[in-house]
Amino acid sequence: MAAPMRPTSLSLFFMLGTLSSSLLCSLISIEAAAAASSGGYQHAQEADRVSALPGQSSNPAMSQFSGYITVNQQNGRELFYWFFEAQTVPSQRPLLLWLNGGPGCSSIGYGAAVELGPLRVKRNGTGLEFNRYAWNQEANLLFLESPVGVGFSYTNTSSDLSKLDDGFVAEDAYNFLVNWFKRFPQYQTHDFYISGESYAGHYVPQLSELVYDRNRDGKNYYPHINFKGFIVGNPETEDYNDSKGLLEYAWSHTVVSNEVFRLASRVCDFRLFNWTDECVTVMSLLFQQYREIDIYNIYAPKCTSKPSSASSSPGVPSAAEAVERRGKGSLRAMGVLPGGYDPCYSAYAEEYFNRADVKKSLHADAFGSANRSWKVCNDSILRTYNFTVASVLPIYTKLINAGLKIWVYSGDADGRVPVIGTRYWVESLALPLRSQWRPWYHRGQVGGRFVEYEGVALVTVRGAGHLVPLNKPSEGLALINSYLSGRQLPTRR
Amino acid sequence: MAAPMRPTSLSLFFMLGTLSSSLLCSLISIEAAAAASSGGYQHAQEADRVSALPGQSSNPAMSQFSGYITVNQQNGRELFYWFFEAQTVPSQRPLLLWLNGGPGCSSIGYGAAVELGPLRVKRNGTGLEFNRYAWNQEANLLFLESPVGVGFSYTNTSSDLSKLDDGFVAEDAYNFLVNWFKRFPQYQTHDFYISGESYAGHYVPQLSELVYDRNRDGKNYYPHINFKGFIVGNPETEDYNDSKGLLEYAWSHTVVSNEVFRLASRVCDFRLFNWTDECVTVMSLLFQQYREIDIYNIYAPKCTSKPSSASSSPGVPSAAEAVERRGKGSLRAMGVLPGGYDPCYSAYAEEYFNRADVKKSLHADAFGSANRSWKVCNDSILRTYNFTVASVLPIYTKLINAGLKIWVYSGDADGRVPVIGTRYWVESLALPLRSQWRPWYHRGQVGGRFVEYEGVALVTVRGAGHLVPLNKPSEGLALINSYLSGRQLPTRR
Repeated sequence: MAAPMRPTSLSLFFMLGTLSSSLLCSLISIEAAAAASSGGYQHAQEADRVSALPGQSSNPAMSQFSGYITVNQQNGRELFYWFFEAQTVPSQRPLLLWLNGGPGCSSIGYGAAVELGPLRVKRNGTGLEFNRYAWNQEANLLFLESPVGVGFSYTNTSSDLSKLDDGFVAEDAYNFLVNWFKRFPQYQTHDFYISGESYAGHYVPQLSELVYDRNRDGKNYYPHINFKGFIVGNPETEDYNDSKGLLEYAWSHTVVSNEVFRLASRVCDFRLFNWTDECVTVMSLLFQQYREIDIYNIYAPKCTSKPSSASSSPGVPSAAEAVERRGKGSLRAMGVLPGGYDPCYSAYAEEYFNRADVKKSLHADAFGSANRSWKVCNDSILRTYNFTVASVLPIYTKLINAGLKIWVYSGDADGRVPVIGTRYWVESLALPLRSQWRPWYHRGQVGGRFVEYEGVALVTVRGAGHLVPLNKPSEGLALINSYLSGRQLPTRR
Repeated sequence: MAAPMRPTSLSLFFMLGTLSSSLLCSLISIEAAAAASSGGYQHAQEADRVSALPGQSSNPAMSQFSGYITVNQQNGRELFYWFFEAQTVPSQRPLLLWLNGGPGCSSIGYGAAVELGPLRVKRNGTGLEFNRYAWNQEANLLFLESPVGVGFSYTNTSSDLSKLDDGFVAEDAYNFLVNWFKRFPQYQTHDFYISGESYAGHYVPQLSELVYDRNRDGKNYYPHINFKGFIVGNPETEDYNDSKGLLEYAWSHTVVSNEVFRLASRVCDFRLFNWTDECVTVMSLLFQQYREIDIYNIYAPKCTSKPSSASSSPGVPSAAEAVERRGKGSLRAMGVLPGGYDPCYSAYAEEYFNRADVKKSLHADAFGSANRSWKVCNDSILRTYNFTVASVLPIYTKLINAGLKIWVYSGDADGRVPVIGTRYWVESLALPLRSQWRPWYHRGQVGGRFVEYEGVALVTVRGAGHLVPLNKPSEGLALINSYLSGRQLPTRR
């Protein structure tokens, strides 16, 4: 469903075609606020309610909603969300937004249906089963497909797709939030947290900064969001340390030879935004090795069955592809992007979410997306995305100083955004140590380790890959419980 | 059963009390050879035959033998063995000796009954079950409890136990071999290989050198052994690189903090045979972290149940123990020794092998061992062992030049003798590269990686810990098949 007042606002936006996006967004807020004050939100909210989904197993009673939120009236940009109220006392639980990365990967396809959502796609895509480690035991849980072009989200202005970059994504996500709160004003005062993994390591801090800044804007253009902090998993954060960590991890975890490791260490200057040809050549040898295993979970079996569609293999490119793209000279240009995962999972979700009855039940059969096939990751978004931000560390510094609650977690069996690089950049923030590195426990075992600095905590999850809530669901739930509740992770067995 | 001619030779040895051990051993050979030529071996061999063991499951027909071989008549040193003929065409299969490490750990308790033997102890020690990945599919398989004091092996001269060191162990093992071949002369001409893991990383090359040297001795003191090569797993080899690797592995695998890693890197000179007090202090912090997980398999659950006997915990010492032993200033003095494993496994084996009916069936109820409780690892051996050899690399160089077939394998999830250190010392041999580092495949997945140098191959086993045949039995079998058959590991999926 689109935002309720679209006809009126559409004409308004046609008259204002040259306005800046920031002013536009404030106008969106104003129009949505009007809707809210008139009580129109109740109708829109109810229209988004999901009664039951095809093949949904019996599960605890749980309110869910899904549909579209307009983020740019003029260009016809609509972002799709799926929202689950907390399983118990939703009125007293925080609101948690979850974002997947890619760029181009769907928070429905990964976060909701494979990782931490309460309804998980069954093995062959025939239906949904209840996930007893769902994070909506802890929070009201909001999944957003972002940016436009991802999953069911769309734009009626195809040129938008060539303009996607981190700033664009953050602006649209911010507009989404503002208008989502208009449709669900009962959550406006809840504590609000942002979470995500992989390339959402960019999205999450960037959106956080926008929310923080606009909350402080004195001109009352922007509604106040009760924003408390963010948590990111295996987050792409700073190219230099992420790349250095990737190389060192591949060697210390037996993926590459001594020769490739030493050569890459010598010829690659990861401080460069674009790698030199020499560096690309040797790094492509490294990625050739990763083609043989699941880079996102290096000890797991690799899925060897074919994905349902040829293009739905968002993980590691072939060596040929990697070398072919070397001209662009960067990790990203080599197509080795985070956020994707195993094509086996993709295939199951793609079976399910492309069913007409499922689309209808989810209110996802809007004009702009009805005839497009839904994919877990959209490779064309990945290819055309404009990578312009090499580091989000300045945002960390700013938001740590602002007193937000910031946690970083890392599944330590991930080769793509490895814990080694994450340790490096967290340490590079040069924050005072609050509590030393030590284990945390889960069910009598070491769940991982954690270290607390003044302003940020780093938590590792032992034996988990890139998608922690998939690989270690019980540990993942314990982690988000600790984060949201403010309780320390268990330090005794 | 003791060697057949004991009464005669005993008196001989009493007369020769001051002879050197090497001359003694040649005399042992001579007396045993006399027994063989007289045909007496057949009786002794049959007396060692094991018909059936208590609680043994039905399994493929398989000849097995066990008993004692005298290695020093004068002092009454008897080594216990358990031998399984190959499951098929034993007359055409090579003979493979397996040694566990410790020092103090039993090749019966680990190798035979937990790892690669055809009869594995059941979970609660009630019986034995057939292991379908047993290495006697590939070879005639000989397990030796070495040195005296380990398992059922014993000495009647308790002062022997204070003299144990690598040289002592190798001499006794050599004497064992010579006399075992007298009892089983039908194997004298078979291709012979030596294998083992952990601290057997010392035993195996040292015994190999002895066999090699004595085969070449021109004086015909020593019978010829058709020795072809050796293979070692997660082998303690060279203190410097093993220790460096241990530290780097602990950091790169999220076990220790940045602070401990950097401090240890600064204050520890692993080239010293005994660490400085400063180094011991910081390394004890590292081992404190390893107390929380299974150092021998860092992603596995740690066994949290109590071992059957308080002293049967051969793995990681408590932090207090570690610090208490710091005076001795070495990794070994800290009690953190390889070879041991999880007390849960120990408990099962100790239940079983301490049964009187089991001892009787195995011919293990000899005078010297009957009243002693059998342990998977004997801590007192570990404590009193004289560590005098910091590196066995000179032996590698010598035996590589001799053209022996030498393989090293490494489960890459082992924190105790980690693959990082093994990579370092293998590279330090400075051998020409024969084939580059690349994956090998097993059942459509990457089993690990391997690299071949002129004279030595290094094979990793992905996701396996210290005890590869226990953690990855199918991969372990594929590995020993490749080694023994001379076929390359599969390089295609």
